[in-house]
Amino acid sequence: MIAGNELENLRNFGAGEVTGKQADILGSIARSCRLDAVLMTAIAGSGHPAGSLSSADIYNILFAVADVTPSNCCDQDRDRIVVSHGHTSPGVYAALAEWGFIKRDEVCANFRRAGSPFQGHVERDVPGVDWGTGNLGQGLAAGVGFALADRVCGRDSRVFVVMGDGEQPKGQLAEARRIASKERLSSITALIDRNHIQICGRTEDIMPADIEAIWAADGWGVLNCDGHDFADLYRTLKKAASSPIPTVIICRTIMGKGVSFMEGVPDYHGKAASGDLLVQAIAELGGDVGDLARLKELRTGPLPEGRTNSPERPVLDVGTPFVYGASDKKDCRGAFGDALADVASRNAGTPGRTPIIALDCDLAPSVKLDGFAKKCPEFYFQTGIQEHATATVAGAASIAGVVPVWADFGVFGIDEAYNQQRLNDINRASAKVVLTHVGLDVGEDGMTHQCIDYVALFRNMFGWKVVVPADPNQTDRVTRWMLGEPGNICLAVGRSVIPAILKGDGAPIFGDGYCFRYGGIDVLRSGKDAAIMAMGQIAGRALAAAESLAKKGINVRVLHSSSPLGMKPDELLDLVSGRPLVTCEDHNVNTGLGAIASMHIARSGLSVRMKNLGVTRYGDSGAASDVYARMGLSQHDIEAAVESLL
Amino acid sequence: MIAGNELENLRNFGAGEVTGKQADILGSIARSCRLDAVLMTAIAGSGHPAGSLSSADIYNILFAVADVTPSNCCDQDRDRIVVSHGHTSPGVYAALAEWGFIKRDEVCANFRRAGSPFQGHVERDVPGVDWGTGNLGQGLAAGVGFALADRVCGRDSRVFVVMGDGEQPKGQLAEARRIASKERLSSITALIDRNHIQICGRTEDIMPADIEAIWAADGWGVLNCDGHDFADLYRTLKKAASSPIPTVIICRTIMGKGVSFMEGVPDYHGKAASGDLLVQAIAELGGDVGDLARLKELRTGPLPEGRTNSPERPVLDVGTPFVYGASDKKDCRGAFGDALADVASRNAGTPGRTPIIALDCDLAPSVKLDGFAKKCPEFYFQTGIQEHATATVAGAASIAGVVPVWADFGVFGIDEAYNQQRLNDINRASAKVVLTHVGLDVGEDGMTHQCIDYVALFRNMFGWKVVVPADPNQTDRVTRWMLGEPGNICLAVGRSVIPAILKGDGAPIFGDGYCFRYGGIDVLRSGKDAAIMAMGQIAGRALAAAESLAKKGINVRVLHSSSPLGMKPDELLDLVSGRPLVTCEDHNVNTGLGAIASMHIARSGLSVRMKNLGVTRYGDSGAASDVYARMGLSQHDIEAAVESLL
Repeated sequence: MIAGNELENLRNFGAGEVTGKQADILGSIARSCRLDAVLMTAIAGSGHPAGSLSSADIYNILFAVADVTPSNCCDQDRDRIVVSHGHTSPGVYAALAEWGFIKRDEVCANFRRAGSPFQGHVERDVPGVDWGTGNLGQGLAAGVGFALADRVCGRDSRVFVVMGDGEQPKGQLAEARRIASKERLSSITALIDRNHIQICGRTEDIMPADIEAIWAADGWGVLNCDGHDFADLYRTLKKAASSPIPTVIICRTIMGKGVSFMEGVPDYHGKAASGDLLVQAIAELGGDVGDLARLKELRTGPLPEGRTNSPERPVLDVGTPFVYGASDKKDCRGAFGDALADVASRNAGTPGRTPIIALDCDLAPSVKLDGFAKKCPEFYFQTGIQEHATATVAGAASIAGVVPVWADFGVFGIDEAYNQQRLNDINRASAKVVLTHVGLDVGEDGMTHQCIDYVALFRNMFGWKVVVPADPNQTDRVTRWMLGEPGNICLAVGRSVIPAILKGDGAPIFGDGYCFRYGGIDVLRSGKDAAIMAMGQIAGRALAAAESLAKKGINVRVLHSSSPLGMKPDELLDLVSGRPLVTCEDHNVNTGLGAIASMHIARSGLSVRMKNLGVTRYGDSGAASDVYARMGLSQHDIEAAVESLL
Repeated sequence: MIAGNELENLRNFGAGEVTGKQADILGSIARSCRLDAVLMTAIAGSGHPAGSLSSADIYNILFAVADVTPSNCCDQDRDRIVVSHGHTSPGVYAALAEWGFIKRDEVCANFRRAGSPFQGHVERDVPGVDWGTGNLGQGLAAGVGFALADRVCGRDSRVFVVMGDGEQPKGQLAEARRIASKERLSSITALIDRNHIQICGRTEDIMPADIEAIWAADGWGVLNCDGHDFADLYRTLKKAASSPIPTVIICRTIMGKGVSFMEGVPDYHGKAASGDLLVQAIAELGGDVGDLARLKELRTGPLPEGRTNSPERPVLDVGTPFVYGASDKKDCRGAFGDALADVASRNAGTPGRTPIIALDCDLAPSVKLDGFAKKCPEFYFQTGIQEHATATVAGAASIAGVVPVWADFGVFGIDEAYNQQRLNDINRASAKVVLTHVGLDVGEDGMTHQCIDYVALFRNMFGWKVVVPADPNQTDRVTRWMLGEPGNICLAVGRSVIPAILKGDGAPIFGDGYCFRYGGIDVLRSGKDAAIMAMGQIAGRALAAAESLAKKGINVRVLHSSSPLGMKPDELLDLVSGRPLVTCEDHNVNTGLGAIASMHIARSGLSVRMKNLGVTRYGDSGAASDVYARMGLSQHDIEAAVESLL
């Protein structure tokens, strides 16, 4: 950092105004940043220089005023800066280097080098980056998640969200605006880099949007300033900081600012300078061309390391499981809701415990968040029918010190918000997503509401855990386990009321003495003639099939995989041990449990006589039992499949 | 239909005003509809009566004024009505029965009965339903797709989109508004059923949205009317119809209108009346309780059939393939762009040909739509960074007589818009989605831009076809095939410039004499010691590995699966015929080609020595070849995998 002491009184808006001398210092820092952005893109031979130059002054004023420094940037109690237009990473990295978060030579030399943390779009591996972006329109929702977490944790922090103007039309942004406005999250200041240029041309030609009007319509305060004038930026940020409502600052900027041949030219959105133009750019920014060769040499050296962001383990008393007995009938979503409300109320108000918040997209009674809402109303957030923003809010809040539980119908929680959950994965968040009404079990709502792909969708991600419990008892256990566990976790449950699964002696299988083990396979019944492996609530039907087959003298081992993504191949092969195998699932037959079992079997080089039962087309709308029967997923179909293999 | 002749002059706004007598007739029809909505939900024991009663008058005025009738509802040249809040299906079905599209007894008896076309949310199997909905916030984008197709086809039709007020916060709606506004699609009239009630309570409490302000901010005309007054509805619709800009009508309504105990009560959003209250509702609506028993009896009878909606085959001259020879290097996206521009310009202006339109989310130069845009500017639509709406626009336009080609980066075209593509599938649309920059081949853009799940995502759907060509020649063939083919099709290509794949004699494999066959496996090299099966551009690397192994005396058969979702198990097993198999793909190793091959092998009961190479974590940001090497996907890795199996 060039001149920290001279600027120290700007932090937290301690100064009335930016002095002329301070503006000069900031200008000099920003010029350095611009130079580095040009250098690193030139050395990498790719990247986004022009947007970086456009946003450079915004980044530097933010690192001057925000309570975020190299020494506190891993703490919870501080300000946060989200860069939504993550392709301006050269500008962000250059500013982070100027302000001491990272080493200037390292980033200039290793930008976009395979294996370095300095990816093409900002990622959390880089100290000072609070949210990895690159897919546009998501940054504001992340900011809302941070601000909600700040409020719940009683922190007096600010959140700054910097955006491009090209991304303003994204719908998720409008959703995030409304949540911020409803919750009066005045701690958020959004800044739009308004340079009027995007890839294909002028924003007005690509997709006209009256930016002032759409933000104002959603209840935000709207301010304007010169995005290249530090005094104006400071003054406007300070004004926004004292507003009682969330405020957006439209910063008038120039694309490519500071390099004459880049200014206002869409072409340099995603193209590095080279040759004579590169030499000219370096000269215009007061740099030394000789530095290029030195940095290029460094690029052949050892790879720099990023920081690791392991999610924190929540501090919670997860209580004592509720046990549902032989005479109890319960829907798994109800078992989830009861367990959640129990854990939440048990911990709320106890100092040192991690706050649990619930997010609801207008479905509380169906997804069973109503118990939580009653017991902990101050931790319950109604975010409306806005799933894209809600998913990102959950992800961001989870890395800011709360346990966010978002419960929604399966098709909304993952099908609609798939990419947001993917970005939660990349950001190593700890969102807890509860998908209810999954599978054909949604019944009468019909095919648009049949979430028959939830395992398959999360299977594409490398961090998410998915659990599909067999009955209300297992649901209770998994809910408590999930709340106390770090990382992104999905709990998927159906709609129907079902009985608890019992042992041969009539006691609940998932009752006293049961301990949930992620990835483990539950043995529900022993048997030697064949095996049925079920996933989720259909396990009850599999057991009934086994009992019916037993009467015919066929003894079937009944297995249950509650967490097929974590299933160990050896455990599977050991439990099947060469017997004929029928898998059954209320999920697309080609992409869920059966497909995972197939993959493990094929990779083992062994052969198993197998049938996979599952969903083979979009299903009907009707009573779940009728819909199952028409799909070939009745108890009878399971029996017939076993018999066909013998 | 009760009284067609008396109302005939309302169609196409032929009358100046609705007369008192006409209002009475419409009122009587609407009362019948309300009764039927109450009856069908009661008989089904579930469904959404209160919203249906709220929207009933809107549906009936639309069926009176719109140029859509039982006799023309399968034609292209007519008006269209989209119901965005598809859960009001009882109201829609009841109105369709009144206006002669379907049989009243059939729908009242078989609503939400498994196997009947009358699903819980409106679906296109029901004559008169133009777009299947149920996931909220998507109807307006479908309307935009229809209106764009109307314009391109030179049709003077109108599009009416009815929405709930609870869904107004959905971001996709804002995106669709802006496209309509930019394109000045004045043929669209949107109607909002403004009853202020959603599942969890009042809209103002759930998620405040200043509906007038947000629509006006996006450039729409805003009108208000009494949604239960036919004269006012007609007058306002007529006014909207003559506006030069798209117009929304905010219809003041009462949730549950017409049944005293349902009016204004959120509880009846999703609950049928029963018992004494049902008897009371029937009485209030002038019905006969005795009808209930008769209809219930019908429900045990034969299932009614829906209409079939097979997509139409486009009428196009797909031209003569461009052949890239041994000395040509080309990116597959460029080969796509050239073929598209060729086919489009070859057909544009020829009467009787199906128009091709291109949709671009601000990426034309990268996704190679620029050639098309230059040759056919009037068919090129820039929809901005608004992927959710664009996906639905493409789907809807495709069933309205155009071939829509939406080209975008993989992560935006499918990861971000997964649910929209799922709904395009359910709607049996014919969207052509071109995913560029898929896989680690995106290179320096890094992990947020790595689309490594595209096969896996479409694998969850039952209709989509996906093709991943090996080189520019195959890309050209597939592009031409896709444009002439009905149904939803995805073409997925990488970023890099690559050489054409050649036979041993140096001629292109996918050159003269090659004919693309969906699902077929290409044999790139013969060999007897082992087999490598690749998907997409990595085929070139697989061939190089085979050539290197040949020098060591190991003769490897090299296979290519360009369309793994259509792969025939028998063809696979026959071509592998017990040899050790290495699969390689620039895709998540657990969810793409290797997983599909595993499934076929495991289900066959055979065993194969196999290794699956693919993406095993989020990848690096850097030159694609470096990123591949660090992922274990280099030519050397493929060779080593083969050797390890021998």
